[in-house]
Amino acid sequence: MNRPKFVRRASAAAIVALVAALPAVAQFAKPEDAIEYRQSVMTVMGAHFGRIGAMVQGKVPFDAKAAAENAHVVHEMSLLPFSAFGPGTDLGHDTKAKPAIWKDPAKFQAAAKDMQQQVVKLDAAAKGGNLDAIKTAFGDTAKACKSCHDDFREK
Amino acid sequence: MNRPKFVRRASAAAIVALVAALPAVAQFAKPEDAIEYRQSVMTVMGAHFGRIGAMVQGKVPFDAKAAAENAHVVHEMSLLPFSAFGPGTDLGHDTKAKPAIWKDPAKFQAAAKDMQQQVVKLDAAAKGGNLDAIKTAFGDTAKACKSCHDDFREK
Repeated sequence: MNRPKFVRRASAAAIVALVAALPAVAQFAKPEDAIEYRQSVMTVMGAHFGRIGAMVQGKVPFDAKAAAENAHVVHEMSLLPFSAFGPGTDLGHDTKAKPAIWKDPAKFQAAAKDMQQQVVKLDAAAKGGNLDAIKTAFGDTAKACKSCHDDFREK
Repeated sequence: MNRPKFVRRASAAAIVALVAALPAVAQFAKPEDAIEYRQSVMTVMGAHFGRIGAMVQGKVPFDAKAAAENAHVVHEMSLLPFSAFGPGTDLGHDTKAKPAIWKDPAKFQAAAKDMQQQVVKLDAAAKGGNLDAIKTAFGDTAKACKSCHDDFREK
């Protein structure tokens, strides 16, 4: 399978291996730094995902170039947050992360991977510039976001 | 000049033009959304820049692959925050942004562009894998960050 370069470089499996191999402190000085980092990643991802959503929902005119730029950022961001759910980062800062993340890491990692795979498709669709394809990929990605948030994020 | 693809796609000039052409509301529903977005971008950028810094300062062993991955993220993030300093985003959320940003936009944009150019060099140096080159580019980038923060961010 021909996967984008950054995905090859930082696949979900590699991230999981990295998290397993290193204490949280190796990447973040304090648990709250990890929490703030992953929340920031989600904020940036959500902003750019929302801009594609506005086009998909017809709230703003479709702009293929803007859609591709936004999907690119969503893709980059999708690779980042999961290194910041290491051991000990369930507490220490205002977080909506549910304990289920650390109780059932395999399920969490599968949900993360599903989102990342949908985002790869969204990025490809956006690069292609076909609004119908973008709509489909956007919907599939939104489902993956919602499913993971339902299971692993407090309302 | 052969510039990286994403820089061509979203140059500082293009971002400035975009900010000038669109009301803030076109990109962010509320000023606080813009503020939270740009703060999030800075948090992510800072985390990855700091990881390169730890290698440059000898606090962690040099890992060329990790340096390149971190510089890649720094580069991506360096392109994002300046769309979120639009008119009306000087207030409305806890922000350290100084009024000078809106009083002297040309100076702010020049500082932003300088940072982005240093980051392009840092990204190139990190891809090259030579620690001495990374040290030089890291130092130049850190200077650009500090200079802009001194002028445009409250302590």
